Amino acid sequence: MDAATFLDFVGVTLFAATGALVASRKQLDIIGFMFLATLTGTGGGTVRDLVLGVPVFWVGQPLFILTCAGTAVVTYFTAHLLESRYRWVLWLDAIALSAYGVFGAYKGLVVTGSPTLAVVMGMMTATLGGVLRDIVAGEETVLMRRDLYISAAMAASVVLVLGYWAGLGLITSSALGFAT
Amino acid sequence: MDAATFLDFVGVTLFAATGALVASRKQLDIIGFMFLATLTGTGGGTVRDLVLGVPVFWVGQPLFILTCAGTAVVTYFTAHLLESRYRWVLWLDAIALSAYGVFGAYKGLVVTGSPTLAVVMGMMTATLGGVLRDIVAGEETVLMRRDLYISAAMAASVVLVLGYWAGLGLITSSALGFAT
Amino acid sequence: MDAATFLDFVGVTLFAATGALVASRKQLDIIGFMFLATLTGTGGGTVRDLVLGVPVFWVGQPLFILTCAGTAVVTYFTAHLLESRYRWVLWLDAIALSAYGVFGAYKGLVVTGSPTLAVVMGMMTATLGGVLRDIVAGEETVLMRRDLYISAAMAASVVLVLGYWAGLGLITSSALGFAT
Repeated sequence: MDAATFLDFVGVTLFAATGALVASRKQLDIIGFMFLATLTGTGGGTVRDLVLGVPVFWVGQPLFILTCAGTAVVTYFTAHLLESRYRWVLWLDAIALSAYGVFGAYKGLVVTGSPTLAVVMGMMTATLGGVLRDIVAGEETVLMRRDLYISAAMAASVVLVLGYWAGLGLITSSALGFAT
Repeated sequence: MDAATFLDFVGVTLFAATGALVASRKQLDIIGFMFLATLTGTGGGTVRDLVLGVPVFWVGQPLFILTCAGTAVVTYFTAHLLESRYRWVLWLDAIALSAYGVFGAYKGLVVTGSPTLAVVMGMMTATLGGVLRDIVAGEETVLMRRDLYISAAMAASVVLVLGYWAGLGLITSSALGFAT
Repeated sequence: MDAATFLDFVGVTLFAATGALVASRKQLDIIGFMFLATLTGTGGGTVRDLVLGVPVFWVGQPLFILTCAGTAVVTYFTAHLLESRYRWVLWLDAIALSAYGVFGAYKGLVVTGSPTLAVVMGMMTATLGGVLRDIVAGEETVLMRRDLYISAAMAASVVLVLGYWAGLGLITSSALGFAT
């Protein structure tokens, strides 16, 4: 597993966890947990791949879906142990945002070669999963609640692109983008 | 017309009817009826086909669009005869869910060969039309209102896949999935 | 730049402006302005291209994204000068709707050759950007607020198709559709 695939799994798993936590706040059943976890975990990357015209990343690799479902099951049996589920959603969101923004920007850069599009792809990948989660769950979208949300995704994407162009290589640039 | 195409038309028409009933509750004009009927009828299958990377089912076969528009017109002139439009939405949703879940799972199985993906495709096809309808109409999404909603779609999809793998053939498996 | 490309840029820019005005009403920061402007400006056309199975129009032509971002910046520094931002949203929406509906119908007609699909594509292109904007911003979708919204998009699309088939050529038909 290379650095890019690792970032991808980190992003998908963390977003899936936020989806499952929202399902927990809405008191859904376990299938509802799985649905919302999978939607949040794969949503951003799915739109990114459709727009780029490449095969959707989890079709042909069902491991991503199983990861989301597994995260949902684990959350289902442990969520009541957390004191403030909402604060966990915000924290996990922030970490997932960086990981996923960096990976999205990287994929956009590799496929299109355009830094502008790479930044857009990074932002889309990082934010759309959470936005879909909030829309389906009927909550105010995270974009409206916290101004820094998209800005953080954009910063991660821009740093990745700059680092990559400066010849730092993927791993260093990813670490920088993640640190932002 | 084979069994699969028949199920497809049943699902599209019933979902289109629920979309038109919601348009009726919102007191839209006839174009609003058509829009919401078409969105609900074709929404789930459109996302399924995009994700699978196959041509969208209603492009190149405008009959689906005309079916949705026709269903909208019929509903427009008859909806006031129903006593409780909301209960009709729930009942039609339930039937459409089974028909469309079975067909979505079948298409996912044929295209990808993976049972995991087939179940996901069945759930997506069956639920996303209703979810899009509720989001655009500004109602709470049906997923939040009724826990059994996704579970029913999942059951129909799982039964179809199991039946198909047990060698029962499409028609028997569909009947079983539908009965669930 | 031919007539079709011109209409495309007009539609994208005007929709981007409505997105930025909604961001202004929601008091987002400048990155939020860019996000909402880009989503509104490119949303309808993106869905249209995905469904048609052609490359998404702004991938490979980053000028569209830069136009949206530029519109967002200009709006950010001038929006407070407008007296009623909401009325500007409605007016710009109406003009963008015609331009974008005409262009969407034209693209649908060229790609599929079917007048039914051309009308559907014109309606989708014209309305979905505004619908996505309202959903993400948490406002009631414009479809629910104003019955004439979709009807106007449909009229523009139908006139374009009729004019094209009557042999009037693109420019004349566009002018007619736009005038509607």
